[in-house]
Amino acid sequence: MPKNLRNLWFEECDSFYKNTRLAIKEVLYAGESSFQEILILNTFEYEKVLVLDGDFQSSEKDEYVYHEALVHPAVIAHPKPQTVLILGGGEGATLREVVKYPDIYRVVMVDIDEKVVKLCQQFLPSYSSGAFSDKRVKLLFDDARKYVSETEERFDVIISDLTEPFPDSPSYFLCTQEFYEQISHCLNENGIFVTQASRLDCLNWVIHSLISNTIKQVFKEALSYYTYVPSFGDRWSFKIASKRERVLTALTPQLIESRINQRLGAGLKFYDGITHQGMFSLSKDIREKIDSQTLVLKDANPQLLKEIYQKKLGTYL
Amino acid sequence: MPKNLRNLWFEECDSFYKNTRLAIKEVLYAGESSFQEILILNTFEYEKVLVLDGDFQSSEKDEYVYHEALVHPAVIAHPKPQTVLILGGGEGATLREVVKYPDIYRVVMVDIDEKVVKLCQQFLPSYSSGAFSDKRVKLLFDDARKYVSETEERFDVIISDLTEPFPDSPSYFLCTQEFYEQISHCLNENGIFVTQASRLDCLNWVIHSLISNTIKQVFKEALSYYTYVPSFGDRWSFKIASKRERVLTALTPQLIESRINQRLGAGLKFYDGITHQGMFSLSKDIREKIDSQTLVLKDANPQLLKEIYQKKLGTYL
Amino acid sequence: MPKNLRNLWFEECDSFYKNTRLAIKEVLYAGESSFQEILILNTFEYEKVLVLDGDFQSSEKDEYVYHEALVHPAVIAHPKPQTVLILGGGEGATLREVVKYPDIYRVVMVDIDEKVVKLCQQFLPSYSSGAFSDKRVKLLFDDARKYVSETEERFDVIISDLTEPFPDSPSYFLCTQEFYEQISHCLNENGIFVTQASRLDCLNWVIHSLISNTIKQVFKEALSYYTYVPSFGDRWSFKIASKRERVLTALTPQLIESRINQRLGAGLKFYDGITHQGMFSLSKDIREKIDSQTLVLKDANPQLLKEIYQKKLGTYL
Amino acid sequence: MPKNLRNLWFEECDSFYKNTRLAIKEVLYAGESSFQEILILNTFEYEKVLVLDGDFQSSEKDEYVYHEALVHPAVIAHPKPQTVLILGGGEGATLREVVKYPDIYRVVMVDIDEKVVKLCQQFLPSYSSGAFSDKRVKLLFDDARKYVSETEERFDVIISDLTEPFPDSPSYFLCTQEFYEQISHCLNENGIFVTQASRLDCLNWVIHSLISNTIKQVFKEALSYYTYVPSFGDRWSFKIASKRERVLTALTPQLIESRINQRLGAGLKFYDGITHQGMFSLSKDIREKIDSQTLVLKDANPQLLKEIYQKKLGTYL
Repeated sequence: MPKNLRNLWFEECDSFYKNTRLAIKEVLYAGESSFQEILILNTFEYEKVLVLDGDFQSSEKDEYVYHEALVHPAVIAHPKPQTVLILGGGEGATLREVVKYPDIYRVVMVDIDEKVVKLCQQFLPSYSSGAFSDKRVKLLFDDARKYVSETEERFDVIISDLTEPFPDSPSYFLCTQEFYEQISHCLNENGIFVTQASRLDCLNWVIHSLISNTIKQVFKEALSYYTYVPSFGDRWSFKIASKRERVLTALTPQLIESRINQRLGAGLKFYDGITHQGMFSLSKDIREKIDSQTLVLKDANPQLLKEIYQKKLGTYL
Repeated sequence: MPKNLRNLWFEECDSFYKNTRLAIKEVLYAGESSFQEILILNTFEYEKVLVLDGDFQSSEKDEYVYHEALVHPAVIAHPKPQTVLILGGGEGATLREVVKYPDIYRVVMVDIDEKVVKLCQQFLPSYSSGAFSDKRVKLLFDDARKYVSETEERFDVIISDLTEPFPDSPSYFLCTQEFYEQISHCLNENGIFVTQASRLDCLNWVIHSLISNTIKQVFKEALSYYTYVPSFGDRWSFKIASKRERVLTALTPQLIESRINQRLGAGLKFYDGITHQGMFSLSKDIREKIDSQTLVLKDANPQLLKEIYQKKLGTYL
Repeated sequence: MPKNLRNLWFEECDSFYKNTRLAIKEVLYAGESSFQEILILNTFEYEKVLVLDGDFQSSEKDEYVYHEALVHPAVIAHPKPQTVLILGGGEGATLREVVKYPDIYRVVMVDIDEKVVKLCQQFLPSYSSGAFSDKRVKLLFDDARKYVSETEERFDVIISDLTEPFPDSPSYFLCTQEFYEQISHCLNENGIFVTQASRLDCLNWVIHSLISNTIKQVFKEALSYYTYVPSFGDRWSFKIASKRERVLTALTPQLIESRINQRLGAGLKFYDGITHQGMFSLSKDIREKIDSQTLVLKDANPQLLKEIYQKKLGTYL
Repeated sequence: MPKNLRNLWFEECDSFYKNTRLAIKEVLYAGESSFQEILILNTFEYEKVLVLDGDFQSSEKDEYVYHEALVHPAVIAHPKPQTVLILGGGEGATLREVVKYPDIYRVVMVDIDEKVVKLCQQFLPSYSSGAFSDKRVKLLFDDARKYVSETEERFDVIISDLTEPFPDSPSYFLCTQEFYEQISHCLNENGIFVTQASRLDCLNWVIHSLISNTIKQVFKEALSYYTYVPSFGDRWSFKIASKRERVLTALTPQLIESRINQRLGAGLKFYDGITHQGMFSLSKDIREKIDSQTLVLKDANPQLLKEIYQKKLGTYL
């Protein structure tokens, strides 16, 4: 592999007026599935990375930050998590975090793109770390919305690692009030739902605030949290929600530590009580921006997102 | 100004293998002072930005995040802040935050580069917002280390907005134990010191950990904190230190809120009690990395930094 | 000016899949006229360059190649050139070449964009080299097509330095059969017409072949020629046409040399008899491609160009 | 393969201040041999391309231009070409052009890098088009200089497709007077030598002029010629030389046509009598620059090239 030359680059369009470039050591895979275009690259900066439809997904070097942040607050928040549904998460790293809990005896994972799952097992084995072979795991290749609307199974925790909504895309229907109501319906009564919820900073907060406000219509309690992921160059956000009140706000660093000890034995790499406190203590400007959102995403109104993207573009992208 | 074309770009080398590009509306200034090369650009993504020696410094759109994070924890941590010394900070935004406190009756600002200060007043007036005309302010154009070692004045708070240390550069001597001892000597007995302390994430933590460990040798209490700054694409860190024990850890969100109300009247845009809690609750992986550092930067050993940069380069940049 | 840094770049889109980047020393002008967006840049590679609507126009370092190639074959081909009409040519370098001939007693130059002409005089004075002050020159700011259709003046030589035709642009009507008929009408009976005629190589020949075939419908004799222009990165082409037969093919290197001596005294920098022979001896593949074109551009059919651009895009751009 | 996305780019450094970027469809090969780093890419703009040590070598779309220009003038100039030596030319396209002549009964090809030859046969089969299996061909993997100095075989035509000289590289010794004397010694008495001779335009002429002047010391007759190669973005030059006088200048378009008919039957794609005339009619500025060169490259003085590169860099790169 060319070691001293920087002739091959991956270029990601962060916006119309900004892009980021990574020098490439090796193109491990470049192709497409029925659903998306797929790149698996070996980069000098972050080692192996996955790119779907031109969007950087994650890097070997720091994917643990994102995946621990996505999974553990929800599992720890639940009083007795035993069954988990994962929507999306084709890389397998979300699953890897879930199967760490011995008391979780059933995990259903629903991803639409079998090809991405197979390619990640082949080229990014550290992501799933063997989790796909775990006997507790049932892997389905299906549309998340379809599965959620049809299944009769109920879960303690539902984790959505689905792509964020883009205008003029079916992904819109994976962030509407109707979808979240179906999710809620699939949860047991103490159920916890968590979803990745786009970039979140003082210049890029609109998508998060829409997801946030829509989820708040459905659940008794819902909180936003975020963490910086180096290879994204962005601070990424999540929305966690509970079917009961005062479950999430009751999570003190001490309670988190004690549950981690009890449920996992060993500690994690990124997540613990203080990490949780840091992620859930949003800065004042961000809290105000999220709270200012009054719109709700509904199945009947996909053009709303389009209008917002256009406005956003005009304003600051 | 060309509105629809993206022909002019600012390209920043983040590392040998990564760069970031911003489309430019206008080049407001491109030149050099005796100390550095200076670009002031109007970009589509972040409006006006300042670049020194090819390094992105700040943008109009989000500089408040960095500057509030740098200034307010230190001023709020002090029981009765009345005099402040600012080292560096040529843009004037650090000064702008300091002069918001009516009880601070004297501010000395020492920056080596008069040209940068003048250019920022001309092209980036919102940064200083008139603070340079405040009668409480004394502006000196001098070397920070020289000033600190010679002055007989003592301050309640010292804020260092100096550049981070680069190998083979005089900036090394602005982050050594000897320098921090001189700083400590210039502080009154309740004195608080704060400095920007480089990027800080799980892939870029070495520089912060060195600054952190060096400062810990000198002060009774010292804490690391960080926040994400969108236009940097990085999470930026700070180190705050106190001449007395249990001053910084005693700052609860409630105490912070009450001091902001009392000392400032109106609230700030970014900083408040919860923001503080978020910034000071570092994630587990980062805490472990900072704590793992045993090296101390000393005047006698400038080559240490060089060796570390080389190793860092070999490892993951 | 930053001398060692390469932070500012001009990026030109050569096609959807290819671009060229030049490091910038200085942005001399960035703005717009009523007709186009204008950049005048000082680059490290080519010194000062002019860019209109994102298209590189010319560089100080090698503009003499293009402008000598455009002007002299036509003037030399005419038996007794005394009056010249220049269409476009706002930079003034076409004019500079024309006024070198003492026997030319009248030059009319018609450019639509007064702002470009003024900016070039200010920032690129070597281009016109004072030619705009020449008493033989009449400068008009008008639409070329309108001028040609309305004027009652007749010329010995007409030189078109107009932009090439883009789809959905009024520039289409500056390369139609009807326009060339109006041009022919404005020429005296020995009149010579020459126009720049786009890039010309084995991968990019469609636009030239269309212009070429359209001009052949109108004139008795018409020849294609080309030369490489380093700062374009392209080989640029021209089409020269005569109202009489056997005028252009009769130009031997010897005849050219003798006319240059007679009419100019001193020689030129780029053009002479052998240069002429090189430019007019097109390679076999190019000759075949030009000859294969059967379409003619007509006022009534502007969508033709659009269709061709789309097909071209599909085929090899 | 991603069809609509432009995420992967090949970037070539044309100079310190200029680069060219091509969007990539597929990385066919990225690796290294004992001699160089090798990329074989499928690009949107030019289909398959070969890159050695970061330098663009050729593209499937237009390599015929370069290879016909390199081979045919030399073979056609010879009164009765029967044996040919090719130095370099690993892609196999030079060989493909040579074996088109039925009367050539022996071709020796000497390339140092077996890996490049094998990779080109595998990934770029249209380049050699089966020529490596031709029974008249003897392929040796050896150093060109070593072969030429040791062989006792004599040839009618020697074609050098070797890399151009870079400072501090063994390639210097492939363009010295001593090397050309060895070449001359390997030629029969009517022998013709041709070599590629770097970019050649009014801004980049120094390397060509050095090769040109050095070859002129050794041969009775020597001419420079050039052609534009679209995927290079450059005009490329060659130097052809004869052991006898008035062989090259005697080649009229008519003589060339008649020899092509006689020796090849069918015509070529690029080269014919008029193409030859175009390539050999250099523009006035270029002729003057080549003629201005007085330095000669000699084995004893490799630092000369280094000094020239440094000066060149200072002057206009």
